[in-house]
Parts: sequence; C-alpha cells; structure tokens
Amino acid sequence: MKFDNNKKTCLSKIDKSNKKTIDKSIFNLVQIINNLDNYYTTSSCSGRIVLFTGKKGNSGTIFQSHDPVSLKQVKQNIPNNKTVWFRQEPLILHIASRNLQSAEKLIKIGHKNGFKRTGIISLKKNLVEIRSDELINALIKDKDMCLQEQYLERLISYANKNMLLNLEKIKKLEHAFKKKEKK
Amino acid sequence: MKFDNNKKTCLSKIDKSNKKTIDKSIFNLVQIINNLDNYYTTSSCSGRIVLFTGKKGNSGTIFQSHDPVSLKQVKQNIPNNKTVWFRQEPLILHIASRNLQSAEKLIKIGHKNGFKRTGIISLKKNLVEIRSDELINALIKDKDMCLQEQYLERLISYANKNMLLNLEKIKKLEHAFKKKEKK
Repeated sequence: MKFDNNKKTCLSKIDKSNKKTIDKSIFNLVQIINNLDNYYTTSSCSGRIVLFTGKKGNSGTIFQSHDPVSLKQVKQNIPNNKTVWFRQEPLILHIASRNLQSAEKLIKIGHKNGFKRTGIISLKKNLVEIRSDELINALIKDKDMCLQEQYLERLISYANKNMLLNLEKIKKLEHAFKKKEKK
Repeated sequence: MKFDNNKKTCLSKIDKSNKKTIDKSIFNLVQIINNLDNYYTTSSCSGRIVLFTGKKGNSGTIFQSHDPVSLKQVKQNIPNNKTVWFRQEPLILHIASRNLQSAEKLIKIGHKNGFKRTGIISLKKNLVEIRSDELINALIKDKDMCLQEQYLERLISYANKNMLLNLEKIKKLEHAFKKKEKK
C-alpha cells in the first residue's frame, strides 16, 4: 500500500506541473510508465543541449534546449571572457518501482534498449535510473580563445544527430513499455 | 557460500592478469575492496584519455592512456581523413556484493564521495557500478578539418586536470573503504 500512496502523491505533484516540466518528447513515455501498476516516474529529462561556464557540471548553465540547435542560437549565447563548454546529454529517467523484482525488469529493459548505464540508484523506493553514456562535452571557448566557426558548426551537427538518435531510442523504450502494458 | 566461491574464482582470475590489467592508480583501491569480506571487484578502469574514430563509443579506439597526455602524444595519434573524438573518462568500478544490504552500502559510499552515477546494475551478483559523470567528449578532427593546435592544447590541459582530480577522488574512495575495513 505504501507504494500506491507514494505513487499517488508523486503523480499528483507531476500533474500540477505537467505543461511546464515534462519535456514534450517524453510526454508519451512518461504517461505509459505511469499507467503501469508497478512504476511511476520521479524525474525525467528527454535529452538536451546545454552551454555552461566554469568547471563544475550544471553550476553555470547559460543556455539549454531540448531540441536540436542552430549555430546562430549557440553563438548568441556565448558570453565574453568566459570558459564555455558545449554539452549534449541523452535521456535520463528516474522510475520508482513497487519492489525489487519490478526494478530488475527495468534494468533489463534499459540494457536491452541501449541504455547501458541503467541501474538501481536507491533501494528506498527501488529507484531506477535509465541512462546511456552517449554524451558530448566539448570546450568551445576558453577565456579569450574561440573555436573556429566552421568547427563549431560541425560539432553542433553531430550533437543534433545525437538528439535525433536519442528520440529514436525514446520510441524504442515506449515500445518496450507498451509490451509490458499488454502483459 | 555461493558468494565466497564466486569471489574465489573471480579473484584467482584477476590475480593471473594483475600486472597486465589492473591500472596502477587503482591497484591499492582494488586490493582494499577485495580484502573486505562482502565485496570483490569484477572489472575496473582507473580513468583514461582515449582517441576514437567514428560515431560509436569504443568501437574505433586508436589511442588510450591511463595517465595525463601531451599535445605531442595526441597529435601523433590523429590519423588522416578520419573523424576523431577526444574522450576523457573517470574511474569506473564494478563490485560484486555479498547481499543487497552490502550493495546498498556501496551506493552510499559512491554518492557520498562524488560518484553520482553509482547504482546496482545487476541483481544476480548484487553488482554495483561506481561511476561519476565528469566526462569530456570532444570532436577534434572531422575528416579534412582539424582543430587549431592552441585549442587542442587547452582541451588536453582540462582533460589532464580532470585526470588529477580523478586521482584525488580515487584516494577519497580508498579512505572510505579503509574505514569499512576497520569496522
């Protein structure tokens, strides 16, 4: 019963912020998972392209997009006199499971569908992180020094391709969860 | 008893290949873990700098170093007419645990010491992956187009700094496991 109560509480929170926070390209996937008896999502990111300054992860995010980006968009958001990193991240999903057995099924679904970095990150809620390691993280500006524009263009083109591949993988996951639905 | 037998089998294999395969900067850490009753390592990488061609992960590795690298080393290993990615990866450790409870302790140790991506990746051997997400993955050559040398130098300098930070984190992990040893 505890799981069902937690799910109810968590999903009522999610519903309130639906339009603002669940990225559109994983809206379906999240709905499918939350319709399953044994699971609910606690957080999600469909994949994104980020620019950040400084050394530490997300601390200095200056630009973020959940869709492919243009050279213009990126250039507009590069500040002067700062070190800037360009990062493209794939889907990340956190899913609470009713029990260990259901968590284990998620690990298998993740690994089978190319999300190699899937694992249980907390046993409290049998919380599974679904994730792959196809990441771009490239220095595009170091203080006074800027990347050649043509080069930046190529990098962005690879990142955009990754974003599309990521969408395909999201569709694969949808299929895998739909199969579970039918069982 | 099954765990102890598995551990014995696995470690006898490791011992045979010790000199060749366990990276020197995690030799101590691996020994400390394997001396604990409830754990043994099944695979490990201390962190590395890799050059690879093509789109897919490790498929086209053309250079690999577990130590900081020089501009000269990198330049020597960039082939003509190929797309080359420069990747710096942190420590990755796979540890089998006696039971779920001991696996859970590993997750806590990982998260507490900055290995944010730590999780149970298989329940068969209560296998925990200890991993962080501080990764560099940058395009340094795209067919005919090459990154400015000065730029490549900066990128390498950041990667080398990361390798040193990674070593510090390995030391932190050693401490955490030593504490467990004393308990």
